[in-house]
Formats: sequence, structure tokens, C-alpha cells
Amino acid sequence: MKLATIRTPDATRAVKLEDSVLVDLGEPDLGTLLARPDWAEIAAARTVASGAATYDVEGADFAPVVPQPSKVICVGHNYSRHIEEMGRELPSYPTLFPKFADTLTGANDPVEKPAETDALDWEVELVVVVGKPVRRASEDEAAAAIAGFTVMNDVSVRDWQFRTIEWTQGKIWDSSTPVGPYLVTPDEVGGVRPALEVSTTVDGQVMQRDNTGTLLFDPVLLVQYVSTITRLNPGDLIATGTPAGVGHARDPQVYLAGGETVVTEIEGLGACTNVIVKGS
Amino acid sequence: MKLATIRTPDATRAVKLEDSVLVDLGEPDLGTLLARPDWAEIAAARTVASGAATYDVEGADFAPVVPQPSKVICVGHNYSRHIEEMGRELPSYPTLFPKFADTLTGANDPVEKPAETDALDWEVELVVVVGKPVRRASEDEAAAAIAGFTVMNDVSVRDWQFRTIEWTQGKIWDSSTPVGPYLVTPDEVGGVRPALEVSTTVDGQVMQRDNTGTLLFDPVLLVQYVSTITRLNPGDLIATGTPAGVGHARDPQVYLAGGETVVTEIEGLGACTNVIVKGS
Repeated sequence: MKLATIRTPDATRAVKLEDSVLVDLGEPDLGTLLARPDWAEIAAARTVASGAATYDVEGADFAPVVPQPSKVICVGHNYSRHIEEMGRELPSYPTLFPKFADTLTGANDPVEKPAETDALDWEVELVVVVGKPVRRASEDEAAAAIAGFTVMNDVSVRDWQFRTIEWTQGKIWDSSTPVGPYLVTPDEVGGVRPALEVSTTVDGQVMQRDNTGTLLFDPVLLVQYVSTITRLNPGDLIATGTPAGVGHARDPQVYLAGGETVVTEIEGLGACTNVIVKGS
Repeated sequence: MKLATIRTPDATRAVKLEDSVLVDLGEPDLGTLLARPDWAEIAAARTVASGAATYDVEGADFAPVVPQPSKVICVGHNYSRHIEEMGRELPSYPTLFPKFADTLTGANDPVEKPAETDALDWEVELVVVVGKPVRRASEDEAAAAIAGFTVMNDVSVRDWQFRTIEWTQGKIWDSSTPVGPYLVTPDEVGGVRPALEVSTTVDGQVMQRDNTGTLLFDPVLLVQYVSTITRLNPGDLIATGTPAGVGHARDPQVYLAGGETVVTEIEGLGACTNVIVKGS
């Protein structure tokens, strides 16, 4: 299944893609849907034929795939070529940093380049969407807790990220981080450790290209690792890291400018397409 | 005023300390109270004489002072002696790292030493509680957005904190971080840049002692700085950093063990008193 949260004139709605329409799932967003233990059955049962309301997929306005996750945990240093370009050794443990719900924005929303930076950068990431509460998950529990996958552009404010030794302040700018458009269930992408082509283009130029099959710490291991520390709640997001090719690591360095269009895409999941707009 | 969130048999309640009783403020917790623009007037008006329900302060069960903040931002490296003991230079910018709502626990709750660590450490911190939504706050707006102050023990899992260059995974263990007991409004502690004695004891032995007047980045500046990056919502918490004397920086290093009692106290605000219990 391909699920999403869309904005309607009144509110947001959880939907499922069926052929070329979006079927209403009876919940305001995927966060409230995933909080229901029977979310998969509910989503499977709601169809055009069952009489559920529908929306045009053409022109749909995608909200963050989960608008209010309790936790967004991001992973650094997880593709070997990106680790090498940043000048680091292969790590023994995942590097974790946060985002907050306010950090997120819709898959096709404009992204503001804050007036406070000239070093806005892209990072395409495969994101795990959590579908069950888990703490100290075993491998099987972790696999079963993966509702599916989506795409994130972990837009990073590099000058603020590197002001101090902690990256957080470069990673939590409001509405900086597109996530979506769809939560795609594991059965559609080859399981809970999918090997999918991942790429970023800026105004059509390919900047990042790799495959999620080369992740050092795979989605199941990441759910286990994070859940050792903190419970993962339905709708929580784990962004699994970005491959080589970020602007900051280029020679010369390249950053995003107003008017440019960034497309972060993962095979089978779709793309976030975002125009950069200059902040005032 | 001294405000708190207490647990009752049915639910949590927002309360105000009046002499030796806790007066019910008509809201489930301080988060929902602070979300009301007129929270200060509401809290001032509810008194024993007005007929509000009351609870004994003796034996009150304090929840995290705000149970579900949208953001908890912590500051590292903010007392000069602590920076020196960690072997660092005085910084140009605040170092920020996160906690999540699930990280918090009540002011007097037992704190579990997770089975996965033998390096559990204390950090007493002055915490700013946000009382108004702010983004890119001016100095005056930042000062006006400070609802008050409380105490945090930023309990840290040092071995996980230093597994990678990002501290997050040592700082977000579930229910690790006592915060409370009271939100004390600025008028009771000398304003929005209070100079208060701050201390930690472990089984009665003084481990940290300093004064919040020596903060490099003061509460108003921190609200301005963080709000440049992300909006601060009512109930959000900014922990302003810890002074010298943490266990990790001692020679030899000292960590918390099951059965010990840690008291983190700030003049005029009260104390968190927490027994360490061994996790299974």
C-alpha cells in the first residue's frame, strides 16, 4: 500500500493511493491511523468500491507524511562513500541526531532558505516509519514495527550545524525538511531491508546517487538500536542517513539558492520536489 | 507564583502552591495551562478563597513540570568552570542538543540506571519554561516569553553519549530526566536572568556547586538564539547547561549506582530528589 496525509480545504486526511485516486481512510492523518493497532487492516479495507470518499491524486497537497511524530531520529554516517567524503572512518555505532515535528514540511512544499544562512544543503534519506510501539526490540520485533518507508530531504544549515560540535542547531530549522509523499509498505519494496536507488538532483543536475542496500546500519538494526534508548511510538520517523554528494563536501562547496528546485527521489517510494525560496 | 503538575489517582492536574496547599488551576497540566494566553491571570485568580479544589503539598506526586513539551532543547558548555573541566575553550555560540517528552520524569521519581550502561551521571540545570509562542524573538520578546524557571537533572548515559561525536544517544533515555518540582515565575527569583545558587549532592556529598549568574549564555539570550532556528511553543523547555563537578570529569571518574540518592537543587526553585534504581 501507498499511504499519505493530504491537506484539504478544511483539515488534513489520511489517504491510500488506489490506481489514480486517493481513498479517504477515515482518520485525519497517518499519525492517528498508525496509532490504531489494526491500521493495516483498516487501510486495506477502505477502497473506492467500499464507498470511501476519494480525492484526485493530480494536484494533491501532501502534508508531512506523519505531521506530528513524537520523535524524529536521524542517522549520520551510514553510507560508506559519504563517510569517506566527510573524511571519517567507518563507525562502530550509528550517530544519532534529532529533528522535531515543527522541522517537517510537505513533500512538495517550498523550502525557505533562512536569511541567517548562505549554506543550505541537501541530503536525500530513506526514512523508516514506525507502526507499533517498541522498546528494546528484538530483531523480529523491530522488523514487525516497520510500517513502511518514505523519502526525506534532510535539509541542513551547514554553517549553524558546524558552529559547535553538536549538529542539532543546523538540523531543526522550522519547516526545513520535506518528508513524503507516501508511506510505502515493505511488501511493495522488497521487505524491511530494501535495496532501492536513491538520488538528489538540483535543477536537473544529479548530485547524489546510491542504493539503500549499501547502508551500514539497516532499517531493522536502527529500530533495534534506537528502541534500546527510547520507546518508538507509532508514526515516529528514523531517517537512515544520506549518501555521498552533499554540497558541503564538494570542491568547491555548493549550496542551495533561491529559485532552485531540489528533487530527492527513492525508487518505488516517489520524490520530494521542493523549490527553494529566499527567507526575508 | 509556584506552579506544578501533580499526579492524582485519576489524572494529572495543574496546581499553584498557596501557603501549604496546592490549588487546582482547572487544567490537566502546565502545558495546557501555558497554552492559554491568559495563563498568568488564570493562575493568579485561582485561590483557596475562590473555592478552587486543593491538594496536600505533603506527599504530592509531581509529574514532569510540563509533561508533553513539543521541544526540549538543552545547552552544553555554559558555565566556564565546567567548560574548563571538560578541556574546552570558551565558545562563541551555545551548543544545543535535544531531549524528547518521553525523556522526562517527575521531580521525585526513581531514576532507572539502564542495564546497558555503567556510566550514569548527573547534571543539575536551570531550565527556562516558555510561556508564549516566539520565533526570531527580540530581546524584549524573549524576556516576555519566559514563563519561569525550574530544575532539571540532565541525567546522562556517558558511554553512549561518547560512542559517536553526537551526544543525542546519551541524552534521550526514557524517563531519565527529572524536571520540576515547580515552575517559579521570574518575579520570585529576581527576574529573567536570575543569580541563584545551584548544587548537586549524591548521598549527601556535594558534587556540583555554582551560581546561575555565571552562565555564559543567559536565559534571555538562549530564548533569542533558539527561536531564531525554531519556534518555541508554550511549555517548551530550555535547559541552560550544567556547572563543573559531573562524575565523568572527576579523577577518578564517578558514576551513579543503584540505591544512591541524587539531589539537584536551585535556590528559590526547589529540588529534584531521585533514588537510582537498577534496571533489569
